[in-house]
Amino acid sequence: MEKMVKRNKSSEELKNLGLKVVKDIEKNKNPSVIVPIRALSNVIFNEKTKTLELGDKTSTRYFFNVAHAKKFLQTIEVASISKDLINEEKHASLRDVFYMAKRTIPGTNVNLVDEQSESDDIIEDLELITENSREQLNVNANKNGSVVGKVTIEDSGDVIRWDKLGSGGWSIPSNVEEIKFKKVDAKYIIYMEKAAVWERLNEDKFWDKQNCIIISSQGQTTRGIRRLLQRLYEEFKLPIYVLCDFDSYGFYIYSVLKYGSINLAHASERLAIPSVKYLGITSNDIEKYGLQKHLIKLKDHDLARLKQISEYDWFKNNKQWQKEFKAMKQNGAKAEIQALSARGITFISEKYLPEKIKNKDFID
Amino acid sequence: MEKMVKRNKSSEELKNLGLKVVKDIEKNKNPSVIVPIRALSNVIFNEKTKTLELGDKTSTRYFFNVAHAKKFLQTIEVASISKDLINEEKHASLRDVFYMAKRTIPGTNVNLVDEQSESDDIIEDLELITENSREQLNVNANKNGSVVGKVTIEDSGDVIRWDKLGSGGWSIPSNVEEIKFKKVDAKYIIYMEKAAVWERLNEDKFWDKQNCIIISSQGQTTRGIRRLLQRLYEEFKLPIYVLCDFDSYGFYIYSVLKYGSINLAHASERLAIPSVKYLGITSNDIEKYGLQKHLIKLKDHDLARLKQISEYDWFKNNKQWQKEFKAMKQNGAKAEIQALSARGITFISEKYLPEKIKNKDFID
Repeated sequence: MEKMVKRNKSSEELKNLGLKVVKDIEKNKNPSVIVPIRALSNVIFNEKTKTLELGDKTSTRYFFNVAHAKKFLQTIEVASISKDLINEEKHASLRDVFYMAKRTIPGTNVNLVDEQSESDDIIEDLELITENSREQLNVNANKNGSVVGKVTIEDSGDVIRWDKLGSGGWSIPSNVEEIKFKKVDAKYIIYMEKAAVWERLNEDKFWDKQNCIIISSQGQTTRGIRRLLQRLYEEFKLPIYVLCDFDSYGFYIYSVLKYGSINLAHASERLAIPSVKYLGITSNDIEKYGLQKHLIKLKDHDLARLKQISEYDWFKNNKQWQKEFKAMKQNGAKAEIQALSARGITFISEKYLPEKIKNKDFID
Repeated sequence: MEKMVKRNKSSEELKNLGLKVVKDIEKNKNPSVIVPIRALSNVIFNEKTKTLELGDKTSTRYFFNVAHAKKFLQTIEVASISKDLINEEKHASLRDVFYMAKRTIPGTNVNLVDEQSESDDIIEDLELITENSREQLNVNANKNGSVVGKVTIEDSGDVIRWDKLGSGGWSIPSNVEEIKFKKVDAKYIIYMEKAAVWERLNEDKFWDKQNCIIISSQGQTTRGIRRLLQRLYEEFKLPIYVLCDFDSYGFYIYSVLKYGSINLAHASERLAIPSVKYLGITSNDIEKYGLQKHLIKLKDHDLARLKQISEYDWFKNNKQWQKEFKAMKQNGAKAEIQALSARGITFISEKYLPEKIKNKDFID
């Protein structure tokens, strides 16, 4: 039931978009669509919600305008593809949508789309026009990541216990909008960027001993993972700790999870989680846990990235973070989570993490 | 029980390596280790087993030899780390092993290892010296990929049904040596390179309707996935079909699965599966399924890679494959699996795959 209501919502808004265009035509007006502007010039950091957001600048896309006509047609075509997907209760990837939209406009030599970036762009526009996420438009992003913990979910008719999945865990789908949480016993979540660290904590049954959920990606944090984290936070108020390397890449992963990203500023409301805390390696940890011998020298591009990050609006007045950035610059070195293995393979799960969590040794 | 027996086996061979060195010392001989040579000069294509293999060239690594001493010490150190892991029943990633080995040799300024590539190298040597795979030495590779199908396994004390895992599936661990197959009802396996195609087939319950197992990675096929495929083939004789794009990258994925790879030629016996068949897009499919409008023009690097692949020992006398390579060169274009979505989002699962499988339309 819940599913149908939600589906009807995005379907309804796509229909409204079509009806608006039909009305324009009936009134002999130039058919048009109003699209919020997704560019750096319209991205702001909202000090109140602590997330990156789009401002209120919009542009109007007209059918009878040589510069707009193709994009106008693309918008209507991709909206129609999304509406069909929703009606058929099927999901497509971005690549699928590209191929579904890619055809020659009858009576011309012009393709409606030539590159996937064009249809991807329109999907982001439609997220704004319809106020529905890509996932609600039945267009999925990448699939990546694993999860285990004391949680039972229902998904596509299956009841799945995240604490009964052996060494592998549940493979996180690209779209988690429709999973239902049946039982959540875990008290907090650790999200980590590295699958190898996740396997370490899973083998040590860290999640069982500490009663938490462990989630990893392999590299990039997908939208599916971000939405899963956000839903667990919003529906169960579970604290989320981000376990990253002490390097600018790790800081950036944390930053995106917490504040949102410039590219997806329009989706911050659904993706950013301002309450997440950084549990990764800190400059204090390096001394406290004897990692001095296990540092990696910074290269020029590390220093450049560090400078960039330290100047972000949301970091530049944060004393704790500025202390970390300064320490890294002075040390001229970064440190990886896995350096903890030098102290013993289970050091991370038996000493480092329990101690950090007990002492609330986080950075906000 | 079975677990212990296996653990003792690799542990035993590591012990023998140590005992051999001790014996050398007791006999006042220069301590040494014999290591098979892992270089292109020692890689051969075995026409009988149809896999890439190492030849029988070896080198001897001596302790009292300025050019060998460091590598000799690394070998003993990493062997000792692996033995500890086996005794503690813990698994480490390659990165972990690097940090565990990285320390300064007492009384010197020399680090035992400076770069991960050094410890990675030694682990590959130890695979050969002990005749145990990296996984049996308790050193794991990357974690990646998802699986669903009518199979029940037991892993780390959990009974896991691969047909009750919703839209996500089971997340494949980096090491599948210790999972037990309790019940395998599926009749064949489709392995695909793209998680988005896997999500398509899973949403359409293709594996349920066709009674098969679907496995995907995201990009590279990990050792965990290759071992999972090989075990399912060897223990249950399940045919394996590889669903790839019609491009040189897709051909290479197929080639590695079937014949092994040059880098891991020493592990072909445990990783290559000579019986796999190619089920991906073919030159015939392009016409038959109307994909002509959905081709992607080849670039120079595509052509160069195509030429390379077409000259592989195992492809150069294969008429079917030479026909495909020639067709691709003539068309000057490649085709992606997802181009099938242009014919409808469920075209792949309702028409394309059932038809190809029914007609045994594979390339060997």
